[in-house]
Amino acid sequence: MPSADPPPREPDVLPQPYLLFLGDIVEPAYAKTAFGLRDWARERCIGEFACADGKVSVGLPSLTPAQAHSAGAGSLVIGVANPGGRIPDSWLPSLLQALEAGLDLVGGMHARLGGIAVLREAAARLGRRLIDVREPPRELPMASGRKRSGKRLLTVGTDCAIGKKYTALVLSRAFARRGIDVDFRATGQTGILIAGRGIPMDAVVSDFAAGAAEALSPDAGADHWDVIEGQGSLFHPAYAGVSLALLHGSQPDVIVVCHEHGRAHVLGYPDYPLPGVEDTIELALRLGRRTNPAIRCAGVSLNTATLAPDQAARVIAAEGERLGCAVADPMREGAALDRLVEACLA
Amino acid sequence: MPSADPPPREPDVLPQPYLLFLGDIVEPAYAKTAFGLRDWARERCIGEFACADGKVSVGLPSLTPAQAHSAGAGSLVIGVANPGGRIPDSWLPSLLQALEAGLDLVGGMHARLGGIAVLREAAARLGRRLIDVREPPRELPMASGRKRSGKRLLTVGTDCAIGKKYTALVLSRAFARRGIDVDFRATGQTGILIAGRGIPMDAVVSDFAAGAAEALSPDAGADHWDVIEGQGSLFHPAYAGVSLALLHGSQPDVIVVCHEHGRAHVLGYPDYPLPGVEDTIELALRLGRRTNPAIRCAGVSLNTATLAPDQAARVIAAEGERLGCAVADPMREGAALDRLVEACLA
Repeated sequence: MPSADPPPREPDVLPQPYLLFLGDIVEPAYAKTAFGLRDWARERCIGEFACADGKVSVGLPSLTPAQAHSAGAGSLVIGVANPGGRIPDSWLPSLLQALEAGLDLVGGMHARLGGIAVLREAAARLGRRLIDVREPPRELPMASGRKRSGKRLLTVGTDCAIGKKYTALVLSRAFARRGIDVDFRATGQTGILIAGRGIPMDAVVSDFAAGAAEALSPDAGADHWDVIEGQGSLFHPAYAGVSLALLHGSQPDVIVVCHEHGRAHVLGYPDYPLPGVEDTIELALRLGRRTNPAIRCAGVSLNTATLAPDQAARVIAAEGERLGCAVADPMREGAALDRLVEACLA
Repeated sequence: MPSADPPPREPDVLPQPYLLFLGDIVEPAYAKTAFGLRDWARERCIGEFACADGKVSVGLPSLTPAQAHSAGAGSLVIGVANPGGRIPDSWLPSLLQALEAGLDLVGGMHARLGGIAVLREAAARLGRRLIDVREPPRELPMASGRKRSGKRLLTVGTDCAIGKKYTALVLSRAFARRGIDVDFRATGQTGILIAGRGIPMDAVVSDFAAGAAEALSPDAGADHWDVIEGQGSLFHPAYAGVSLALLHGSQPDVIVVCHEHGRAHVLGYPDYPLPGVEDTIELALRLGRRTNPAIRCAGVSLNTATLAPDQAARVIAAEGERLGCAVADPMREGAALDRLVEACLA
């Protein structure tokens, strides 16, 4: 393994604003990506566009690709997450229409836009780009371990799919509301579409994973915060390596540990009990100290979606008492969440 | 991140025996790979072959590719590790001669054989393979975390380039001498050439890294040992993620911690002090317990190459005393090494 390389460059920015593509779906649940973009990146979304027989709207202005291009749109973003992550043939006329209108195409599905010959040919002919956000940048540095300027927060999970992205988004927004200079730093495809840039950590070659995390949050002003979307878990039998590379490369000053109330086992791994929140805090701090000796845990983000509001409030208060730190559900605004935000900035 | 996939398959075997290619080098130090293969995989090496103006021999029978093919050779293996890892044009006539003679080509250099058009065309025309051992298999599973049958030993380092491969090779050979059914499992390019198969862990996409480690050492008989070549270090600012994925996926029953006497900092990272051997043992056991609760440390492999024999013996004895476990330099045969082997098998 070679040693330290040049300093990290910031990841490229996706062409914006977006026209959100809803395909020909008739089931709103499949428009999860488009709803997420509407909710978390409204300022990047100029409108929506569907096939003639599509039945779903996310409530944005309905624009043709040509209208969107005239209004300044940079790309058509596939806002659908259908089972299997396929790009059906029925979408191709609409996607070609967008390329013809002058828009790039952006996708975060399992199927790659660049894997479809007719799109590849049209893009080449028209000088347009097909951007698959699950593809990491080609040139990533090896991690240097050099301490970077600026402040960083990383969300750390007891498991996958437990609220790390959501927590990072809520905290970023709360920081911004307080007038803080903040960037949400995305490490997965949905987050990358929301942020307009980022690096899909799980798709990076292992040797470059910590280097990718360094490149994701470059040097910044002393008061600037990067709030970094965590991935996996240090206790996950398949993804702990990704989590550790992200922790080391992120060099967080602050971690927030994300957990779901009542989840007992690793998702999809019934033989693996979920680690305790205390163990997760302790291990993340111990490992994180290697690249940032000043790392601290600001508190816990507790997903209480399965509980009624009064139950949730009791559980959150009890966990805060037990752990001796700020605990909040980022889905539930209020004093607990304010205290978690304060603890991050303390 | 999707969940558990089908059970791991064993990695493919390289075409053997090898004809070792020495290029046109005049400096024996550049034939490190060929010397390593001669020393550690003599039974896989049928002979050596150099360009007309080559000046280096590793002492194997000199054979033309045609002679080697007649004698049963499967491939020409590039045994040269020159600065920059390039494949110079001056080698191409010899490499083409090997393809024409019916041999596949195997390389572990930075430059890919498959990246050279004239070789690609000849291989396609002749139905030969160009095998770059730095390329991981295309189809790797996600890690399942399922406990596999058989016994496993993993060498764990305090740093890169500290003796993990060498230790695993020495232990494999010592196990075999005691009549134990053992496989050396390679995770880097040199080890893969020696073993004739393996997976280059550092080149695997992060999400599949633990799955690759699972695939590397599949289910085996209850008394079978896999001795797995470690990578990186859990304390390395760039490669700890690879090390953790390998630790989790390997599910070792036994670890041997590899350290170099006197090394004070991470190679190439002067701001990072080397972790202590005790810290390395403790952290590896703690993290390794996640996928194998029965993990234990058998002892320490201490690289004392810079010391005179009597000094080395004193240092090894003192470390054994201090740590309370078996300590040996695998380069120095004798009672200490025997005790380390016994401790592994205990």
